[in-house]
Amino acid sequence: MLRITVLAGGVGASRFLRGLVHAAPDADITVIGNTADDITLHGLHVSPDLDTVMYTLGGGVEESQGWGRAGESFAVADELAAYGAQPQWFTLGDRDIATHIVRTQMLAAGYRLSAVTEALCDRWRPGVRLLPMTDDRVETHVVVRPEDGGDTQPSAIHFQEWWIRLHAEVPAERIVLVGVDRSAPAPGVLEAIENADVVLLPPSNPVVSIGPILAVPGVRDAVAATTAPVVGLSPIVGGAPVRGMADAALRVIGVPATASDVAGIFADVLDGWLVDEADAEAVAAVESSGVRCRAVPLLMRDVPATAAMASTALELAAERREGSGA
Amino acid sequence: MLRITVLAGGVGASRFLRGLVHAAPDADITVIGNTADDITLHGLHVSPDLDTVMYTLGGGVEESQGWGRAGESFAVADELAAYGAQPQWFTLGDRDIATHIVRTQMLAAGYRLSAVTEALCDRWRPGVRLLPMTDDRVETHVVVRPEDGGDTQPSAIHFQEWWIRLHAEVPAERIVLVGVDRSAPAPGVLEAIENADVVLLPPSNPVVSIGPILAVPGVRDAVAATTAPVVGLSPIVGGAPVRGMADAALRVIGVPATASDVAGIFADVLDGWLVDEADAEAVAAVESSGVRCRAVPLLMRDVPATAAMASTALELAAERREGSGA
Repeated sequence: MLRITVLAGGVGASRFLRGLVHAAPDADITVIGNTADDITLHGLHVSPDLDTVMYTLGGGVEESQGWGRAGESFAVADELAAYGAQPQWFTLGDRDIATHIVRTQMLAAGYRLSAVTEALCDRWRPGVRLLPMTDDRVETHVVVRPEDGGDTQPSAIHFQEWWIRLHAEVPAERIVLVGVDRSAPAPGVLEAIENADVVLLPPSNPVVSIGPILAVPGVRDAVAATTAPVVGLSPIVGGAPVRGMADAALRVIGVPATASDVAGIFADVLDGWLVDEADAEAVAAVESSGVRCRAVPLLMRDVPATAAMASTALELAAERREGSGA
Repeated sequence: MLRITVLAGGVGASRFLRGLVHAAPDADITVIGNTADDITLHGLHVSPDLDTVMYTLGGGVEESQGWGRAGESFAVADELAAYGAQPQWFTLGDRDIATHIVRTQMLAAGYRLSAVTEALCDRWRPGVRLLPMTDDRVETHVVVRPEDGGDTQPSAIHFQEWWIRLHAEVPAERIVLVGVDRSAPAPGVLEAIENADVVLLPPSNPVVSIGPILAVPGVRDAVAATTAPVVGLSPIVGGAPVRGMADAALRVIGVPATASDVAGIFADVLDGWLVDEADAEAVAAVESSGVRCRAVPLLMRDVPATAAMASTALELAAERREGSGA
């Protein structure tokens, strides 16, 4: 049985995973989810990326947006607003809140996030093993300088506030993964990378989704050291993110939003990289850095199209394995 | 301005208070609410009696049942059940949950329950000053012995579990107010009793609603010592509770469910007691214990009927004041 390990952000990764499950129905898939987007809202522990994977693969996601629960209602949020409870820039749906209540209560009872995630998945049965990158608290903060303030000191705000409230429109000076240097990989994370037959980086945000996972001490080294081929898919198509605001995040770290430059971020761990046909001219540049590269359609229009992407990624991985075996 | 202080349970007290506000629109009313029914559910701090007063006087209550929010929905509860979260015998509505989220978060931030209650009332503007009986944790537990277990040891369960899950049908050996002996009256409670012109005991459950309030150290003494007349209204009409299961609670403490026997529970603090016309024969017995007593209609059919009850209670109090002044 093919053991596939995937480092996952939220919406992009979840859609890719649905295609992967379709393309490799018999594979043993472990998903290592980003938890640096996690945020405490109204006293509830929210894990947006883990939940997006869980809801999507478990059949509970709101398809039209790719996150949140289908058939969602907002009675609690309306009431919280009536009380003037802050923040009001992040709206939690009623169904979604139940997930956060269960998670918060289990964490308060002393369970680790990995155990909580496993318990939540008992209900959703996503068909993959979902692991948080770490059981420790890591939060992506963004250092911003208010545009109107000449002498104003820069301030660090939670990534979600920059992303959702400010639409990533306020220029960011730096992205800081608070707590990451003191974090440890969650149980099973390093083993899943070491024992994998294939490691995949789906078209997630390279800076704030894949980046934090690789920044957990030991993870990047494990991905570089694993005997499994490591294949990624570009989240940048034609010089722009397929969805989301990856370009804004790339700008912060000074990396141009191109399919080949994003490959460069992961060059030390990559064996293969898929770019969209629109970026065919990037293939040579990527391959010159020692990474096999292929240009194929990378738009996740539907499950079959996404499954084809996943199949191509697995083929590219198999080439490396055969090549290294020869 | 007439200063009225009311010791309040949940539904019965809230309906009475609505009549009182109608009967004495210019009065300065302080409500001391029972918090021994409070329970932590799904990690949320629920204060059923405080909320029932707040929702009822604030115009947000579900009129048909006298508690909970009007127009309530249950998306969160359905999801919690889908996760198998326990307990499932206490269903929280979505709108109601927002109240508990705000309360829980403020308590976790270090605010006392009295400050939280004041903040919640900022929205509801109930027209009275609502104080919890204490800021300390007090929980009514019920000692039950499973009916089928001959050798089974009795066990203590939360009052809500006995009341709601078991419908008070399992015989109780004892009622224990856990934590009450180490509790202190919340800020303003003793002052509201000492400085009142009238103290009222609405037709609430005498054992598990009024009882815990009087059991907070200092409160019963303050009610006995205040110069204000203390007038109560019988929750028992014709030998049965008007609503609820006060008879089951009375049975536990060995007090017959009659209008005069309930007066006996409060004999040390009462100056006046209203019984229903159906219990007119109880008047002599009550008065023989030194408590003025009058038989009037005590069914809270609507606001005018309830306002008439409140007016009669205030009249009985005024007689005492005039009497003592003579």
